Amino acid sequence: MLAFEAGTGKTGGDGVTVNRPRASAIMEREGLTALVATTPENVAYLVGSPLRATNWTMQIYGVLPKDPNARPALVIPTNRLGVIAQIGVPEADLYLYSDFFLEGSPEGKPSTPDIDLFYQLLGSVSTYPGPLEALQAVLADRGAGGQPVGVDEMRIAPEWYSRLASSLPDGFVKPAYKLFREIRQVKTSAELSRLRKAAQLNERAEQQLIDLIAAGVHEEELANHYRYAVMKEGAVPAMVAVGAGPRSALPLIERYFHRIEPGDLIRFDLCCQLDGYWADTGRTAVLGEPTEWHNRHYQATLRGWERALELIRPGVKASTVFEEAVAAVQREGIPHYRRQHVGHAIGLELYDDITLAPGDHRTLEKGMTLCVEIPYYELGAGGFQVEDTIVVTESGFEFLTGMERRLYCK
Amino acid sequence: MLAFEAGTGKTGGDGVTVNRPRASAIMEREGLTALVATTPENVAYLVGSPLRATNWTMQIYGVLPKDPNARPALVIPTNRLGVIAQIGVPEADLYLYSDFFLEGSPEGKPSTPDIDLFYQLLGSVSTYPGPLEALQAVLADRGAGGQPVGVDEMRIAPEWYSRLASSLPDGFVKPAYKLFREIRQVKTSAELSRLRKAAQLNERAEQQLIDLIAAGVHEEELANHYRYAVMKEGAVPAMVAVGAGPRSALPLIERYFHRIEPGDLIRFDLCCQLDGYWADTGRTAVLGEPTEWHNRHYQATLRGWERALELIRPGVKASTVFEEAVAAVQREGIPHYRRQHVGHAIGLELYDDITLAPGDHRTLEKGMTLCVEIPYYELGAGGFQVEDTIVVTESGFEFLTGMERRLYCK
Repeated sequence: MLAFEAGTGKTGGDGVTVNRPRASAIMEREGLTALVATTPENVAYLVGSPLRATNWTMQIYGVLPKDPNARPALVIPTNRLGVIAQIGVPEADLYLYSDFFLEGSPEGKPSTPDIDLFYQLLGSVSTYPGPLEALQAVLADRGAGGQPVGVDEMRIAPEWYSRLASSLPDGFVKPAYKLFREIRQVKTSAELSRLRKAAQLNERAEQQLIDLIAAGVHEEELANHYRYAVMKEGAVPAMVAVGAGPRSALPLIERYFHRIEPGDLIRFDLCCQLDGYWADTGRTAVLGEPTEWHNRHYQATLRGWERALELIRPGVKASTVFEEAVAAVQREGIPHYRRQHVGHAIGLELYDDITLAPGDHRTLEKGMTLCVEIPYYELGAGGFQVEDTIVVTESGFEFLTGMERRLYCK
Repeated sequence: MLAFEAGTGKTGGDGVTVNRPRASAIMEREGLTALVATTPENVAYLVGSPLRATNWTMQIYGVLPKDPNARPALVIPTNRLGVIAQIGVPEADLYLYSDFFLEGSPEGKPSTPDIDLFYQLLGSVSTYPGPLEALQAVLADRGAGGQPVGVDEMRIAPEWYSRLASSLPDGFVKPAYKLFREIRQVKTSAELSRLRKAAQLNERAEQQLIDLIAAGVHEEELANHYRYAVMKEGAVPAMVAVGAGPRSALPLIERYFHRIEPGDLIRFDLCCQLDGYWADTGRTAVLGEPTEWHNRHYQATLRGWERALELIRPGVKASTVFEEAVAAVQREGIPHYRRQHVGHAIGLELYDDITLAPGDHRTLEKGMTLCVEIPYYELGAGGFQVEDTIVVTESGFEFLTGMERRLYCK
């Protein structure tokens, strides 16, 4: 239970990721005194950086009190403390559990700031026998002992969820994964800054791939170029859809088989994570002169995308954006166009909460970030993608992305 | 519910990853007619390749019947079917749920084998409204409807676990994460082949890092070199502990701050995943002439590691290996040596089931794969690592790794 300031890692320094006022209002509405994060995304939301677990039985919890003046806390196994000293968690108090052995006294010996901090933390942070005892200590220290709490049910081992529930009156432990997602809908400025950095890195890499398009280049060369380009800037590549020729029609791509030929469409849908935040943007290119079919289908998807953006502002329903965008694509050149959604919120999860889909009648709010996308997949013919990331503003939206929106011709 | 043979991806072709006889025996013992996998590792165990989920609400299940002649099945959202067509899942039948729109008829149009398969599957595989209906259809088709089943409880949304449990008599749904781990303790030859490839790739990259050691080289340059080296061979880098000088004493490393100086110890503990299977190996180097302190500590850890290997064979208790290895380190030069474990099983999880630890009194069996490691961490002084991967054989063990075990001097 020690507050410390040093953050020697490269994350942090861009402010607090958590939207405390929104979190407190949602906890008030739900009658909860604290929320317990368990998925890596929700833990990262509280501490600013995702933490690796070795396996599914390892428990890592973040605790967010309703009282906006009470500090969040992080419950971790002692063997993760050295990582905390490297990344810095200035916004959360630490509660450890289980033993971990290492030796030494750094006094007068060679050291680095993270090792000094590690050593200091080892000697000052309380250690509990297990994750439940540590979690109960967090709650008690914040006046939330014996009170109703929400627990992110998706990554806590069910055994520990049951034990926590048994330690409290019936109904005092409620599933909270959806509540975390609701809080995370409206981004803080620190989150916007990270999302912008991720989107810009993604676009720089995407531009490099477009520059590399030529006859004989293999899809896998482009995919590996992307992976390395984002990795060397500190990001983690995820789904890398690079599909050329017939394979441009594949929605998700995880294997690469095709060498680019003249006349091929090349569809990019590229995803990576930087400091925990996702980027997901897409473009389409053609090697050579586009055909009438290429132009008509591309223009129809672009018109749909433009229609979606015209509508985006606080107060509009997600489902309205969907319906109008699909209607525009149908009107502008693909009469049989069908789609599940024309965009999704993005943040710590690739699909954050809110989808521009027929069943989602919630209204957009200032500070929400969305990937707006109008893909078209025709097996045996080809596929198109235009996907950009925006933030909803008071009067409409702002782009987090800046690449030209056109059918790139090489 | 269609069997198909084509596998156009680069995995597969090395046989079945599942140990069916062991799985059937464990289900018989537990009174279960089928097991449902939900974590990516357990799903990969059944289908041969891990499948990405977009978020925590997306449900992907693998089903393993007790009857060794009944085929496994995979329950996935329809939008993942294109990925299945790329990676190939010849060992499992497919059951889809929810809608996904795409257009086209590939007849007479340019295509590739994965697209042809995708199209064929789209037209022939049954689609159910949701994951529970699909799962119930799998069980019914295998004569396991209304029978007791084990469900990997770690990655199914609790809501779906509860719904499945409510659809069956009380006590017919039992948590099965631990049962999958128990089955996976004894590897099949396909798994050994993948673990060997992963370990060998890891060692080739590790050797490159040792070759690159020189004054002025930054830890991060080595870490990035490793990531790229394994990535371009198809692996996914994970925790990359490259610690130099004082930072060689840090057990887990996620950030890099130090430039190598003459006299520095450099400790490597490198982890990556290839085709779903983990590699985790480690070595220690010194830039310049090792001191007496370096040599004494390194030799003590090496003697402990050798003592562990002398004991490894079927029938020995994991805890016995631990006790003897720690005693050897203490006797050979580090009298105060303490440790939680001296190794762990490795496979689809970095820490598979069985740990060479004081509390684990289970006995080793032929076909188990273990990382045997004797790290020593002294904050303010330095750290050492020797870690290799072995498979338990009838008469002892065989290495999956081949690098020289010595304190590398540069």
